[in-house]
Amino acid sequence: MPSETEITDWFKELQDNICDGLEKLDGEVSFHEDMWSREGGGGGRTRVIRNGALIEKGGVNFSAVEGHMPPELLKVLKVETETSKKISFYATGVSIVLHPQSPMIPIIHMNVRYFQMSNGLWWFGGGIDLTPHYVDLILAGDFHRHLKKVCDKHHISYYPEFKKWADDYFFIQHRNESRGIGGIFFDRLKEKGGFTKLQRFNFVKEVGNAFVPLYTHQVNNTRKLDYGQNELNWQRLRRGRYVEFNLVWDRGTKFGLETNGRTESILMSLPPQADWEYCFSAEANSAEEKTLNKLKKGINWIDLF
Amino acid sequence: MPSETEITDWFKELQDNICDGLEKLDGEVSFHEDMWSREGGGGGRTRVIRNGALIEKGGVNFSAVEGHMPPELLKVLKVETETSKKISFYATGVSIVLHPQSPMIPIIHMNVRYFQMSNGLWWFGGGIDLTPHYVDLILAGDFHRHLKKVCDKHHISYYPEFKKWADDYFFIQHRNESRGIGGIFFDRLKEKGGFTKLQRFNFVKEVGNAFVPLYTHQVNNTRKLDYGQNELNWQRLRRGRYVEFNLVWDRGTKFGLETNGRTESILMSLPPQADWEYCFSAEANSAEEKTLNKLKKGINWIDLF
Repeated sequence: MPSETEITDWFKELQDNICDGLEKLDGEVSFHEDMWSREGGGGGRTRVIRNGALIEKGGVNFSAVEGHMPPELLKVLKVETETSKKISFYATGVSIVLHPQSPMIPIIHMNVRYFQMSNGLWWFGGGIDLTPHYVDLILAGDFHRHLKKVCDKHHISYYPEFKKWADDYFFIQHRNESRGIGGIFFDRLKEKGGFTKLQRFNFVKEVGNAFVPLYTHQVNNTRKLDYGQNELNWQRLRRGRYVEFNLVWDRGTKFGLETNGRTESILMSLPPQADWEYCFSAEANSAEEKTLNKLKKGINWIDLF
Repeated sequence: MPSETEITDWFKELQDNICDGLEKLDGEVSFHEDMWSREGGGGGRTRVIRNGALIEKGGVNFSAVEGHMPPELLKVLKVETETSKKISFYATGVSIVLHPQSPMIPIIHMNVRYFQMSNGLWWFGGGIDLTPHYVDLILAGDFHRHLKKVCDKHHISYYPEFKKWADDYFFIQHRNESRGIGGIFFDRLKEKGGFTKLQRFNFVKEVGNAFVPLYTHQVNNTRKLDYGQNELNWQRLRRGRYVEFNLVWDRGTKFGLETNGRTESILMSLPPQADWEYCFSAEANSAEEKTLNKLKKGINWIDLF
């Protein structure tokens, strides 16, 4: 059974590997690192990148925090406990959001995490999702096919289940619009139904390791595409939607901000710049309208072509 | 006792008067109007302004909505009711947010509202607050003095009470920073302690009528100030904070988005453009740093000079 140290060390290593991979992909800039510690216990290693050849603003964060379980968290998690017993927790993981310079390149997000409590409960969670400013159906298919391959190696039920979970999670309810083309999302994966802790950990590792190849494929197929002011304007409006999702609906962000997390690390997910326009509507048959028409739940990206 | 029709008509008139006043102040553009109706009952008149000489993006919204009380609202309002009885509600008001072109001119917000339920409960609420990109202590004093004068005409306890309420409400908790220099905020003002419904209504009217003179004074004292790229960059960062407050902490925005309000009317409050920069820090002794040092609760703006 993997220990919390083993899991933590692996997440640190993942952060290193992803930063290396992204620096190579960018080719120009490197990550700036901030170490921070948390009053209640633990801390993190926030790495941010700014004004690269490829990435305009992004972060690859590792954290490992511990302490007494805040009562609001016990409530959210629906964990029943005797009030006399104090429960402590340990949480570690890696979180990534990258906003590229070019509107032709998608925004990407990944999070992999492990959580345990002193009452013996533990679980893994995570997800990867892609937010193209312009949806390319072939590249969207590639993204989902790759994720399905990763999932299928572990269980045939994983991809359909976690793909649906992502559709439901990465959804901007007040716009009735998906954040992007989804991906996979999973939470509270415990030892059950024949899955051991080691198997769950191996799945999470595979998801983490998939990040650089997944994004490299998207980047290499879009980075040479031309764009102009129209595409940049559209990118800023889509970034506005990204802000809306993260600040209004993303449970991780909301919980972090409400419980005194490190604000600058949590909000590294926000774009460098975002625009809002009252009642924007895309031109009929434009690339922007075609993208909007694809920001829906339940699309089977794999069999679209 | 003012009837709901009387109150509603007055809010409509207020919207007209404020739009007139702002068009004169801007001098170049006029408001675009959208009428909308709500599935559950009622509707609104959203008026937006864009790319004016003075205002870059702003809205002056009137709405009057009615219907069955959503259970989540009863819960939020802590209204106890027999489950067998269906309660209906009626809510009307005017909401304003203006983002000026010049970073030297403050952002302003006002909301005045009336709410009633079929069980006989009713109340007024509202508030005005100012968010200068650069805090000018004299103009901040003028703003608060004017509000105090408005309040004092109704009750000597109003200004100190509602000023503190604004300090607590317009606060970005995850930044430990006030949104701006505050103003006044009040909610659930009912008939009690010698205040009749008519008196409460008269107070709300006076707050509404104060809007144009208040903002005109701020604008006329700042619109001729020079600025450059540095001030525009700072303005966009401050607009980022405005977005954070509105999407993370503003109860009205959150409630509207979560209960299927008209998204475009609710989010007219967002700026045309906002920036985020990881761990931004203002230069020592700069105008930006001086402003940050004033974004705190509990400042007595009136007696500062």
